[in-house]
Amino acid sequence: MPLEQVSQNASFGGQLTKYKTTSQSLGGLETQFNVFLPAEAAKGPVPVLYYLAGLTCTEDTGAQKGGFLRDAAAEGIALVFPDTSPRGAGVEGEDKDWDFGTGAGFYINSTADKYSKHYNMYDFVVRELPSLLSELPINTARASIMGHSMGGHGALTLYLRTLGDKKYASASAFAPISNPVKAPWGEKAFGGYLAGGVEEGKEYDATELIKKAKGDPKILIDVGTGDQFYQQKQLLPENFIEAAKTAGFSESQVQVNLHDKYDHSYWFISTFGPAHVKFHANILKSEPKL
Amino acid sequence: MPLEQVSQNASFGGQLTKYKTTSQSLGGLETQFNVFLPAEAAKGPVPVLYYLAGLTCTEDTGAQKGGFLRDAAAEGIALVFPDTSPRGAGVEGEDKDWDFGTGAGFYINSTADKYSKHYNMYDFVVRELPSLLSELPINTARASIMGHSMGGHGALTLYLRTLGDKKYASASAFAPISNPVKAPWGEKAFGGYLAGGVEEGKEYDATELIKKAKGDPKILIDVGTGDQFYQQKQLLPENFIEAAKTAGFSESQVQVNLHDKYDHSYWFISTFGPAHVKFHANILKSEPKL
Repeated sequence: MPLEQVSQNASFGGQLTKYKTTSQSLGGLETQFNVFLPAEAAKGPVPVLYYLAGLTCTEDTGAQKGGFLRDAAAEGIALVFPDTSPRGAGVEGEDKDWDFGTGAGFYINSTADKYSKHYNMYDFVVRELPSLLSELPINTARASIMGHSMGGHGALTLYLRTLGDKKYASASAFAPISNPVKAPWGEKAFGGYLAGGVEEGKEYDATELIKKAKGDPKILIDVGTGDQFYQQKQLLPENFIEAAKTAGFSESQVQVNLHDKYDHSYWFISTFGPAHVKFHANILKSEPKL
Repeated sequence: MPLEQVSQNASFGGQLTKYKTTSQSLGGLETQFNVFLPAEAAKGPVPVLYYLAGLTCTEDTGAQKGGFLRDAAAEGIALVFPDTSPRGAGVEGEDKDWDFGTGAGFYINSTADKYSKHYNMYDFVVRELPSLLSELPINTARASIMGHSMGGHGALTLYLRTLGDKKYASASAFAPISNPVKAPWGEKAFGGYLAGGVEEGKEYDATELIKKAKGDPKILIDVGTGDQFYQQKQLLPENFIEAAKTAGFSESQVQVNLHDKYDHSYWFISTFGPAHVKFHANILKSEPKL
């Protein structure tokens, strides 16, 4: 489907554009996403960094509150912000809870009958979105991915599931749900979206995936220990660290930083955002073509 | 009245705190404001930069979307974000329009009977707010002020009205309403809030005030020519430039930059925000004590 421009704003020498399109992955529903193109894109295709937002968020949240555009502009890379779920699927109960259904797509492909037509944010982000971007000056073969909370889970799992295909050069996450099969949010999501429930959810669990990962991963994670969801054991970064260590990965391959006082908010994200953009830009600009 | 803490988030090595208090200037209404303290504030009082937001905004808008915390943290200065109007005054009609009443206080002291008890954001920002901040590690004698649109009008007029008292060391504005007595927004606001209407409004008009200004003003203004409100002649920066020139001020005293393509949004503000914080920080950190 063609892209329809919803709005465009000049920013940091480039521009942020909101597009809408009808998505096949999402069962024919309309979805919106934001794209920041730096000034360099006027001269030719630029690398791209995807940002996946968390529960209750939209394609606007990271763009408005993350502070990433400034660094992306300085590095000459594009940013792409998809939505967090399909919208308007009309599945009974999808708007009942803030942590399931609308705004909570979990970046998986649903296999449960009720959700499988629409709740396929995995396919949307990994397959459909890059093809939609092909009409823009973006080199989708030079891509990295980051995200927050549920979107941090998304960034890590999309990266690890496609490590062999080198879909993404690197992944980073702010306060990711790192071991969802052992966390209430993940149990609820996988229990609802997946026919095989939490057991099937292991295919979408960063801690399970890092155990089997092959190659040379490049992962950066920041978590604040003042984060209420960290304290409630929704995030479980220690499980991910332990699994990565056991699998033999070094700290230069999987770097996880814990920070005193910082919480789950965009005040935390925007503080560490510059380092995340730099992390990805260094890799995107130095690696040989994927 | 004492300050009550509503929330606090670690950010950029310091913290953003939302306070609420009961305001005398606002006729006993409760009002909220955000304060960012950089890490340096742990060692002693730091200079402060106020940010006044525009129509429909709150104490949160500039804090969340402006991107100013990063630069304030780097410079070691505090940021203070007040609300844009009293809330809950109960004046008939105050919630009818988006450009008058709630969310549209215009940083004036009302003299019209209907509004004079509550609509006194001028006194709140200039007099009451600094005294409220005295319990924090902020040196309110070293203060500058900036703002957007209606808040740009506020920053310029608060600065120019108090130039002799050196309340603020410098002022800057993003897309300010620069000559409100000649713009529909200003005519409506002054016509409603002031007993003397638009004529009395000249006391709160940056273009009128710069004509009579004495001393060595330090003013920076950025405006995008893609701004719909610039195009609709709500902002009129040319009138301000002309008046400043006629009054004999140099471009180093009153610098106004027009930018192609940029609009009225926070995408524009966040692009030029770093230069504004730098502008004020250089003055706040180099000037002798006021």
